[in-house]
Amino acid sequence: MTATSPPLQVAIVGVGKIARDQHVPAIAGEPAFELAATVSRSGGLDGVENHADLMSLLDARSDIAAVSLCMPPVPRFEAATRALAAGRHVMLEKPPGASVAEVGTLERLARAKGVSLFATWHSRYAAGVAPARAWLSDRSIRSVRIAWKEDVRHWHPGQAWIWEPGGLGVFDPGINALSILTGILPGPVHLTKAVLSFPENRDTPIAADLSFTSASGMVVEAEFDWRQEGPQSWTIDVETADSALSLREGGARLFLDGEEQKVEGPGEYPGLYRRFAELIEAGQSDVDTSPFVHVADAFMLGERRIVAPFHE
Amino acid sequence: MTATSPPLQVAIVGVGKIARDQHVPAIAGEPAFELAATVSRSGGLDGVENHADLMSLLDARSDIAAVSLCMPPVPRFEAATRALAAGRHVMLEKPPGASVAEVGTLERLARAKGVSLFATWHSRYAAGVAPARAWLSDRSIRSVRIAWKEDVRHWHPGQAWIWEPGGLGVFDPGINALSILTGILPGPVHLTKAVLSFPENRDTPIAADLSFTSASGMVVEAEFDWRQEGPQSWTIDVETADSALSLREGGARLFLDGEEQKVEGPGEYPGLYRRFAELIEAGQSDVDTSPFVHVADAFMLGERRIVAPFHE
Repeated sequence: MTATSPPLQVAIVGVGKIARDQHVPAIAGEPAFELAATVSRSGGLDGVENHADLMSLLDARSDIAAVSLCMPPVPRFEAATRALAAGRHVMLEKPPGASVAEVGTLERLARAKGVSLFATWHSRYAAGVAPARAWLSDRSIRSVRIAWKEDVRHWHPGQAWIWEPGGLGVFDPGINALSILTGILPGPVHLTKAVLSFPENRDTPIAADLSFTSASGMVVEAEFDWRQEGPQSWTIDVETADSALSLREGGARLFLDGEEQKVEGPGEYPGLYRRFAELIEAGQSDVDTSPFVHVADAFMLGERRIVAPFHE
Repeated sequence: MTATSPPLQVAIVGVGKIARDQHVPAIAGEPAFELAATVSRSGGLDGVENHADLMSLLDARSDIAAVSLCMPPVPRFEAATRALAAGRHVMLEKPPGASVAEVGTLERLARAKGVSLFATWHSRYAAGVAPARAWLSDRSIRSVRIAWKEDVRHWHPGQAWIWEPGGLGVFDPGINALSILTGILPGPVHLTKAVLSFPENRDTPIAADLSFTSASGMVVEAEFDWRQEGPQSWTIDVETADSALSLREGGARLFLDGEEQKVEGPGEYPGLYRRFAELIEAGQSDVDTSPFVHVADAFMLGERRIVAPFHE
């Protein structure tokens, strides 16, 4: 995109907390895009054209080149296929759908229509992640320990869908940790053991303990817990043969052998929209399902335990 | 492989029901292979060299070019990595592991070592499957209905691992139906809804109801049930715009508009070993995880219901 290109018109579909908190300000700060419209049944944003459904937007606004899907994962496939079929570039909030298989179908459709599909993992754009990946690339990793513990009442107030089948429960934040893990490790890992704790009145887990290994026998232990009151933690600690790396606050801060490193970046969602603009410019897609495959594996291989009911 | 090539020496790892019933006779009937040894802690086969563990076999018998892994899915990854690392071709019983992610790691390892990896789906070699695929390839499919209902006490006597996490429960036979489905459909489908019934004393489901769709809106409904007494069914019925196809008895019999078709083939496991020999000869691997991805998706997206305890 040259400096003189007019910005691409983009629409947000699903105007909830994540759209208001992150997508709207990120688009406002990105010269390559201009927020042209929203799709929301429950009302959009002040001063922005809103449509009650996606088909109405696609029919009315052929000038909108890209849509960013911010609704819950279950209805996302249908919206994505409609937008791709109408020749629009599509950006998917994480997780990229309700099933791993559907993401492959979207990828094929984007290729057939010659448009860009971007399955985003916002945590990979936290400031410490790229330097962590570079630092680990030529080191021998012994073990990784992940603690992703937060208070669901604070972070997901009133989001009923996270407790419904397909809503993923504690894996909704946990998949952010898995996206960083798969983003910084030089090789693949796979799940060997999982214990999932389901509240007796809910369909998705409130906590999960996971163990992974690699072909070379490296070990990853992850603890996801939504029952954390008091201090919250989003920490990934990596031990190498002779030193230690720690990502804290969801990847925003990086420590090497205990010493904080100066890291900087545009911020997670500004980084995503920058990348989306680059993909469209290059005529490419970016679809990495590996964090999502780990979650599906955890549900398949995991031992289910029933724990105390959860009341909001 | 020319007519004068000596047969490849193959070892079976895990001498249980499936090895005795299927693998041993299939190898005996396939000129490309000769059964050289087994690995079993609980005793092997009369007149065949047996090793108590795989490493002992790999150390002692460098002439064994290929191993066929017939043990339960959870320990399969470790055995496969050892055999691949030792430069042997590897054939995996279905499902190809305990996690979807580990299969990708095995595929990379096989490529790095220059050997063949074959993730098998024996039901795809049932006599009716290839003609069904050919018949459906240029037809517009409206719907598919799968009924896979069998008596677990009869078919899986004493197999404790099928009820343990990673054992997949009713998906152990159900994945055979999914391997036929993905083998005969001209395009991909993905799961939209699943209900999994867990006996209150078991870690894996005894029944599952699944709904899939495709990008074009075709619908697949599947019913897996391990509580079927009396007549058993392994049936896939496909409705097209103007006719009907039915695979019965696990794909062994094919009906078009109610009329049985003459189909023939070498049999499922003989077909697998023929294919394995061809892959080795061609220096290729064959690893399709799509049936396994659908199972992982079902566990991730599925609603869990607790049903009556199961006692063998």
